[in-house]
Amino acid sequence: MDQIDAVFKSIDERQDEFIDLLRESVAIQSVSADPARRGDCVRMSEWARDQLKTLGVETSLWELGQQTLPSGEQLPLPPAVFGVYGRDKSKKTLLIYGHLDVQPAEKEDGWNTNPFELTEIDGKLFGRGSTDDKGPVIAWIAVLKVLQTLGIDLPINIKFVLECMEESSSEGLDKGLEDNIDKISDVTFSCISDNYWLGRNKPCLTYGLRGICYYFVEISCARQDLHSGINGGSVPEALNDLMWVMSQLVTVDGQILIPGIAELVAPLTKDEDEIYEKIDFCVDTFKNETGSHGLMSDNKKNLLMNRWRYPSLSLHGVEGAFSQPGAKTVIPAKVVGKFSLRIVPHMTPEATDKLVNSYLDSLWAKRKSPNTFKVTSGHGGMPWVADFRDANFSAGSRAIERVYGMTPDFTREGGSIPVTLTIQDLTKSPVMLLPIGASDDMAHSQNEKINRDNFVKGMKVLAAYLFELAAA
Amino acid sequence: MDQIDAVFKSIDERQDEFIDLLRESVAIQSVSADPARRGDCVRMSEWARDQLKTLGVETSLWELGQQTLPSGEQLPLPPAVFGVYGRDKSKKTLLIYGHLDVQPAEKEDGWNTNPFELTEIDGKLFGRGSTDDKGPVIAWIAVLKVLQTLGIDLPINIKFVLECMEESSSEGLDKGLEDNIDKISDVTFSCISDNYWLGRNKPCLTYGLRGICYYFVEISCARQDLHSGINGGSVPEALNDLMWVMSQLVTVDGQILIPGIAELVAPLTKDEDEIYEKIDFCVDTFKNETGSHGLMSDNKKNLLMNRWRYPSLSLHGVEGAFSQPGAKTVIPAKVVGKFSLRIVPHMTPEATDKLVNSYLDSLWAKRKSPNTFKVTSGHGGMPWVADFRDANFSAGSRAIERVYGMTPDFTREGGSIPVTLTIQDLTKSPVMLLPIGASDDMAHSQNEKINRDNFVKGMKVLAAYLFELAAA
Ligand SMILES: [Zn+2]
Ligand SMILES: [Zn+2]
Ligand SMILES: [Zn+2]
Ligand SMILES: [Zn+2]
Repeated sequence: MDQIDAVFKSIDERQDEFIDLLRESVAIQSVSADPARRGDCVRMSEWARDQLKTLGVETSLWELGQQTLPSGEQLPLPPAVFGVYGRDKSKKTLLIYGHLDVQPAEKEDGWNTNPFELTEIDGKLFGRGSTDDKGPVIAWIAVLKVLQTLGIDLPINIKFVLECMEESSSEGLDKGLEDNIDKISDVTFSCISDNYWLGRNKPCLTYGLRGICYYFVEISCARQDLHSGINGGSVPEALNDLMWVMSQLVTVDGQILIPGIAELVAPLTKDEDEIYEKIDFCVDTFKNETGSHGLMSDNKKNLLMNRWRYPSLSLHGVEGAFSQPGAKTVIPAKVVGKFSLRIVPHMTPEATDKLVNSYLDSLWAKRKSPNTFKVTSGHGGMPWVADFRDANFSAGSRAIERVYGMTPDFTREGGSIPVTLTIQDLTKSPVMLLPIGASDDMAHSQNEKINRDNFVKGMKVLAAYLFELAAA
Repeated sequence: MDQIDAVFKSIDERQDEFIDLLRESVAIQSVSADPARRGDCVRMSEWARDQLKTLGVETSLWELGQQTLPSGEQLPLPPAVFGVYGRDKSKKTLLIYGHLDVQPAEKEDGWNTNPFELTEIDGKLFGRGSTDDKGPVIAWIAVLKVLQTLGIDLPINIKFVLECMEESSSEGLDKGLEDNIDKISDVTFSCISDNYWLGRNKPCLTYGLRGICYYFVEISCARQDLHSGINGGSVPEALNDLMWVMSQLVTVDGQILIPGIAELVAPLTKDEDEIYEKIDFCVDTFKNETGSHGLMSDNKKNLLMNRWRYPSLSLHGVEGAFSQPGAKTVIPAKVVGKFSLRIVPHMTPEATDKLVNSYLDSLWAKRKSPNTFKVTSGHGGMPWVADFRDANFSAGSRAIERVYGMTPDFTREGGSIPVTLTIQDLTKSPVMLLPIGASDDMAHSQNEKINRDNFVKGMKVLAAYLFELAAA
């Protein structure tokens, strides 16, 4: 029996102990969006710090400054936990990122169990944070515990960055990382477990995320709201202009009508093209889970590429128009339409902004409306894509093969996890997203869970990954 | 000096007395929309009843039943005041409608004076209800007082219908009128003073109102809201379909794109065509007052016809989409677009519904979207148009000439005053709208006022109208 088999055996034997540790962390209501729970967030960071300290990890808490609430009130941000385990210059150094805060949850929202009391039903561990992201953080701690008990030396140095504001835009984290840039400059690889499998049965490794560009189209027709009785037929209406402008952005089947966007998109490589067919993804299951009436494509490959590697344009809403139930005969004076593009390599927010603005200007010129028109861009985010053939992904893939007996799928996601790019840029190390939970874990929703099997096998994958990465 | 000159002289002399009477009525905070003010509404009806009774009018209060609040709570409706003055079978009978309730008002909303304390500044009498509609009601009472004091017999029988729920959809009034149909079946003419001059300087008589058809377009793409990261590019979006459908309804310059609508519109008669040029209306002033960036037409006649005698289509808003400030990356699952048509003779809600539904269906077929689509019609209202050459309008016109030394403009309004049609239909009598206040009286807004001059001359017009109508 080699070392790793001993580790797997010990994880199997001690799984209830680690589930109890997860239970302890879930009980701390670290809801970062709720100012009243800020004390719990601080307590959660300290709890994680103590867990690492007990294992002999050198720990520190990074104070991240103050948060300004919408009321203007100032509230201290919860500290991030920084940990250093091993300083052997002959070994590689892995940065592990995780977050300790959770989305809000109330039993009344439709939970079948108390969200802050981890409850096992049919092999599923229900509780807020069970999969997002306390489960993966506890899995790492459990792996260190097992190695220590078995007297196995870490094959690699580890640096932990655990924050407690991820669900609130990671406020303060960039500053924390920048202030401590010298402490993470020796990182060789980074690993983030904060997303999910594509489906319920097959593990995956995630190598890409889309970025985002958000736009506000403001059209104004009058000084104040008008009345359709008095003014209907006399004034060109802002909302009519806006509906028209927004109807010219994307076709019913998702083709973006903004000239130049398609030309920015990185061409499909042979390597990438080959992986789609092999991916375990069922179009019908996806359709049923979203409850959608139709899909842009019924072809698995096309649908995945639409979600991952091509830009998409979505309309979100209108501010300033009548939005309540019932009937109102207002002619809104000023309306703001909102839409966004999910962007992919080689698109940048700058290049996208330029094309979007120029297209919107040309639409407006064509409209010949006397109204005022203004476009503003929200904060843009770059897409991220890694080389899924690199040493990090190879190590992750071999670890998964060892635990699951199958090669993982290489996936992307359509959304963004901004910390991925932050960590890649600041550490200048290759980042891998290694999800542990399944697609039906309901992160952010009612009845969030992690399967006991995913949790246990996840610990094994993380342990194996450490050894594979060291050997790479 | 004939009778009418004596009446005018007495009105001039006693104007402060009648302004005090208006002050007394304004002080009663009869806000019908506010359940907490229901007692004041009842008090207001009783106050008006007492005023009429003192003059010898036979009065009764019509109990109108219960109002069901959104909370489910039941609240008694304030009674309507019914009055009969004169039962001389040899005379004509005029029905006078007015309302005793007012829009909500708080000093904090931006009033320069206490809204419930009538305050004169530079010849303007500021106060809630001063022009809408307590001023006109008090003007009628004042006319009766003057005639009585001067010992002048009423030349015509009068029936009063004064309600106290007009600003809350006249709830209960239809039932009240229907229950008492036998009491109003002998009405020869009806007169309503509850609208305003077209401008500030020239009196008018109003002979037309547009009706309304309101539509809800519901499109759904999924069971629950989706996320543009996860789902952007995979699901045809409901809001994109809706923006397109709604962009196909009316052009930037107001042309309704629904086939068949234009064919329903009553042709312009020579009589009507001639009156527009003479109407005192300044396009620039209108543009400045609405604060609009542009107008559908800079031509006075076209603009007035657009507002009064042609249908118009306005977009009001979207329910179910993101409508708050800021950025949110939701793909709304179900959205409801709202628009309405102002309808004119010979359009009916039924005929309009048919054309709108058939056009929307054809648009949807053309869209080829997999989403679900449903159109519902709100409560429709018929347009109203009277013959401005009839005996009622001729009497009104001569009365105005006598007081102002000028022929009034014959105007229409773009909105609806539903009680107009109710009264016309139930009494089978010709109705005339006889406005007293000026266009800048700010009914429903902050700093509502009636000019002292309009109030005083208004009383004279009403008095003269009684005699002209009797003589007609
Ligand atoms: Zn997370
Ligand atoms: Zn999350
Ligand atoms: Zn009114
Ligand atoms: Zn009103």
